[in-house]
Amino acid sequence: MKQRAITASVLIIGNEILSGRTQDTNLNHISLTVGSWGIQVREARVIPDLEEVIVTAVNDARTRFDYLFTTGGIGPTHDDITTDCIAAAFGVDLVESPEIAAIIRRRPAPPAVMEARMRMARIPVGATLIDNTTGGPQGFRIENVFVMAGIPMVMQAMLGSLEGKLESGPVVRSRTVTAYLGESQIAGALGVIQENHPEIDLGSYPFFKNDRYGTSLVMRGTDESALNAMLEEVKAAIIAAGETPQDVQQG
Amino acid sequence: MKQRAITASVLIIGNEILSGRTQDTNLNHISLTVGSWGIQVREARVIPDLEEVIVTAVNDARTRFDYLFTTGGIGPTHDDITTDCIAAAFGVDLVESPEIAAIIRRRPAPPAVMEARMRMARIPVGATLIDNTTGGPQGFRIENVFVMAGIPMVMQAMLGSLEGKLESGPVVRSRTVTAYLGESQIAGALGVIQENHPEIDLGSYPFFKNDRYGTSLVMRGTDESALNAMLEEVKAAIIAAGETPQDVQQG
Repeated sequence: MKQRAITASVLIIGNEILSGRTQDTNLNHISLTVGSWGIQVREARVIPDLEEVIVTAVNDARTRFDYLFTTGGIGPTHDDITTDCIAAAFGVDLVESPEIAAIIRRRPAPPAVMEARMRMARIPVGATLIDNTTGGPQGFRIENVFVMAGIPMVMQAMLGSLEGKLESGPVVRSRTVTAYLGESQIAGALGVIQENHPEIDLGSYPFFKNDRYGTSLVMRGTDESALNAMLEEVKAAIIAAGETPQDVQQG
Repeated sequence: MKQRAITASVLIIGNEILSGRTQDTNLNHISLTVGSWGIQVREARVIPDLEEVIVTAVNDARTRFDYLFTTGGIGPTHDDITTDCIAAAFGVDLVESPEIAAIIRRRPAPPAVMEARMRMARIPVGATLIDNTTGGPQGFRIENVFVMAGIPMVMQAMLGSLEGKLESGPVVRSRTVTAYLGESQIAGALGVIQENHPEIDLGSYPFFKNDRYGTSLVMRGTDESALNAMLEEVKAAIIAAGETPQDVQQG
């Protein structure tokens, strides 16, 4: 029986990404990581730190995909509103997590500072914790939504702790071959090859490198033999166009 | 009279971003560029090369924001479906643009290659062209939607050609100051400062650098005097917490 594809959406929460102050790298890391586990990221959104926008986006994505991964907005300051928004999206209250509170209390601080930090101990009722191997407060999971930090190092630690704990489907594999050709020179052949293999996604990504035009032809799908068959056809098309297939890669 | 804010959404179209094969940089470039013109990017979506998804996302964003900028999917191969999807979203047909066709015909090619290239001359009825100073085929605009290439160098050339041609609102300016403090140490003060200046957005972005914890405090808004007033309050809060405000920047 064919395994069902497991899908995910990513929500990048933070004004600093939309203003251009910060270049997001979390989406790329999440896509590659969960992709290797057999979870396919199908959509991502970048949204500001605004309650109404976050709640709507969470409720939209959690019902359309198997999993939703969020990054950003779970720190101790006034602009960290993600946890409150997740609770609002699920219509539940916030409770203090004794495990997170214990981690926060390990580092002594004056009462006002401790009070700010304890904001990070609040999780929605029904949530479970996501380990944070950097030693800081944990993230949390509620149903199919995973709420992680925005700082890449912390997000990566949290995501890594989920390995092997999520439902997974077939892993999407890839074949890549480079042709030093303009895309148009093999566009016709590629269209035919794609039609012959509807279950494999064939992408053409042009580049200009070392004073030469070329295109990377990327095949992605879950069926290794179909991938290999398509790769042979693409290589033949490159040769038919008068060039040599180069830099074949398997992923 | 207060100028109205002009808002935008960005649609990053392409399987290669969602698979993690390619790290997107177009959103960051668009946000910074149009931001400097007085257009605020309020949301971005990363979506796959699937007609139904693209059409829905285009129609959603073009009605909710003043402008929509799309990148990706306007090349000559079978997986370049953005132009078709934009026409479908607006319910109009495609026509051949004589200006784009002339540019394409400048470089001679065998008939089959030319036919593939001519795919790029198709634009929706009612669209106007977006210059492409790299010398390749143009992008296009239809109503408030701007359709640009995915290759960063080409996208940047197209976007740059729009400077001075779009409606603009007040430019969002910023003040940034660094505090070598844990966020929690000034969280309380920041919350009060934010409440005092609801028209300015105060963000706290923690980092770990040179073996020290710190946070960048970023103030964003269109009122320079309110920004300056908030900056002074934030600096005072850092001093009150026992540290020295550092690296003040104005943007």
